[in-house]
Amino acid sequence: MKALVLRSAGQLSLEDVAPEPIPPGYARVRLLAAALNHRDVWILDGKYAKIRYPSVLGSDGCGIVEEINGPDRSLVGQRVIINPNQHWGGDERAQSADYTILGMPSPGTFAEFITLPLDRLHPAPQHLSDEEAAALPLAGLTAYRAVAVQGHVGSSDAVLIPGIGGGVALFALLFARALGARTIAVTSGAAWKLERASALGADCGVLYTEPTWADALRRRVGGFDLIVDGSGGEPFNQLIGLTNPAGRIVLYGATLGGVPMLDVHRIFWRQLRIIGTTMGSDRDFAAMLAAVEQHQIRPVVDSVFPLAQYAEAFDRMRRGEQFGKIVLRISA
Amino acid sequence: MKALVLRSAGQLSLEDVAPEPIPPGYARVRLLAAALNHRDVWILDGKYAKIRYPSVLGSDGCGIVEEINGPDRSLVGQRVIINPNQHWGGDERAQSADYTILGMPSPGTFAEFITLPLDRLHPAPQHLSDEEAAALPLAGLTAYRAVAVQGHVGSSDAVLIPGIGGGVALFALLFARALGARTIAVTSGAAWKLERASALGADCGVLYTEPTWADALRRRVGGFDLIVDGSGGEPFNQLIGLTNPAGRIVLYGATLGGVPMLDVHRIFWRQLRIIGTTMGSDRDFAAMLAAVEQHQIRPVVDSVFPLAQYAEAFDRMRRGEQFGKIVLRISA
Repeated sequence: MKALVLRSAGQLSLEDVAPEPIPPGYARVRLLAAALNHRDVWILDGKYAKIRYPSVLGSDGCGIVEEINGPDRSLVGQRVIINPNQHWGGDERAQSADYTILGMPSPGTFAEFITLPLDRLHPAPQHLSDEEAAALPLAGLTAYRAVAVQGHVGSSDAVLIPGIGGGVALFALLFARALGARTIAVTSGAAWKLERASALGADCGVLYTEPTWADALRRRVGGFDLIVDGSGGEPFNQLIGLTNPAGRIVLYGATLGGVPMLDVHRIFWRQLRIIGTTMGSDRDFAAMLAAVEQHQIRPVVDSVFPLAQYAEAFDRMRRGEQFGKIVLRISA
Repeated sequence: MKALVLRSAGQLSLEDVAPEPIPPGYARVRLLAAALNHRDVWILDGKYAKIRYPSVLGSDGCGIVEEINGPDRSLVGQRVIINPNQHWGGDERAQSADYTILGMPSPGTFAEFITLPLDRLHPAPQHLSDEEAAALPLAGLTAYRAVAVQGHVGSSDAVLIPGIGGGVALFALLFARALGARTIAVTSGAAWKLERASALGADCGVLYTEPTWADALRRRVGGFDLIVDGSGGEPFNQLIGLTNPAGRIVLYGATLGGVPMLDVHRIFWRQLRIIGTTMGSDRDFAAMLAAVEQHQIRPVVDSVFPLAQYAEAFDRMRRGEQFGKIVLRISA
């Protein structure tokens, strides 16, 4: 089968590799589509913990179950999406020390076939195209846990989602809207992204390239009860300043790095909570799928590339131009 | 009556002032003892928000109810302690915008008499001396909310309390022990304080003056599930490094100021929670008193000064030599 193999830092190539055997309790899935995540770019660039070469990358996928080694063959022929968690463990609050994400070290979804334990496979929501279904798992899981599980979004909440356009931020917008947030504001560096977010349900959009972005948010919305941030860095203290008493800042990433001189005084005086979150448990994954079906949520797909044009897909993600998920089409 | 009046920054004097009238629903309390808090020193030094002159300071007190303006006179003649909250409001999660703490702007407990709404008065726990009862309210409330309400301490928790010796830290130790924490570690700058903390139930003590203090804690205890910190500052990232996955850092103050370059990556990857806390609600105050009675907790009193020797008491707090609360004896 064809697979996108990471040979060394920066070195990806589409190669013929032997499909894996199917152990008892496992299934072989013929992949229809897979989606890129920042994680794939960081691994490609050698900026990730415990990288192994060679590896087949890719954490997100949608495919057709071709073969099952086991008595229950009910999923054969069905379209499924893949839960990218491996070994979360028994604690809902945090992943175990053995936890990994599909696609390095285990072979990922940028391939024609993948072999996985049956419990990683869920029927794909019927209202989604193959590309939309492939776009859902990692970013949808991360956003659902951030907004619903860690952030406990509710109908009295004003929600702020900085940096709209990335996969997790867009899913956070969709889930916050579906789960009934009172008001949702977003920020971006591009006016066209704010317009797109508005069409998806954001009530207010502000350019973070304006030095007065925080004042503009305060003037237009007031304070925020829930902020879902994947950036950290210098703007984080301004997020703290925008948080209402007893507000929550759920932090799922740090693309801007550490926070210089964290404003501790506001955190304790306003009784704020800064809540770290990563991915989500298997229970979160099932709850996320149920919410997607109940609210007929459609992932935002930025663009679709054939697997052979993977280099263009990676370049697009690296340039940060995308609005939504970048998808690789693998087979018809 | 005699009262300790703040005339201007740095200027305290014991003066004769007229007792306040007693409005309906209020009681006049003859104070037996009052306790100092850092707040009093910060106000004296002009380092606090919205300072008014003249003011009678003092948030903590124990006294005898002398007179009540109202039909229910059951508390008359009883020994009471004072809830220092004023206008917490209806939200358990955070204080209202009108919230203040007893003693500036409203007249405080460094006086022979104080006039307060009846609902601020609670019978003093019988197992406590006047001085111990006076030591309880502000620091006990802050520590109880930090450990039990915000920190949800449980029997599986390893707890770290940095900076043992201050009022809140010592109450945090006593509550964590009473509420069944698995292991409690403390840090201090003085070996004799570690010994005192050990006698009060700490399982492990480490000098933070040793550059390897964090390694020593990791070696002796492993990671921590709950850290109750009032310092912030440079050591905060080391506290993050000592926190187990899904662990909580409850932050009640920032004597060391902001945190230079907060380690955001560990916060999200380990699913940590940084939880700000200030004082506690009226419900927390009642629950704190119930816990003190149930577990027969005795506040640690560092030293007792007659009211007239207030200057020595303030000096002692400023030098940070105390282990426990510094109390002013006001009347017999």
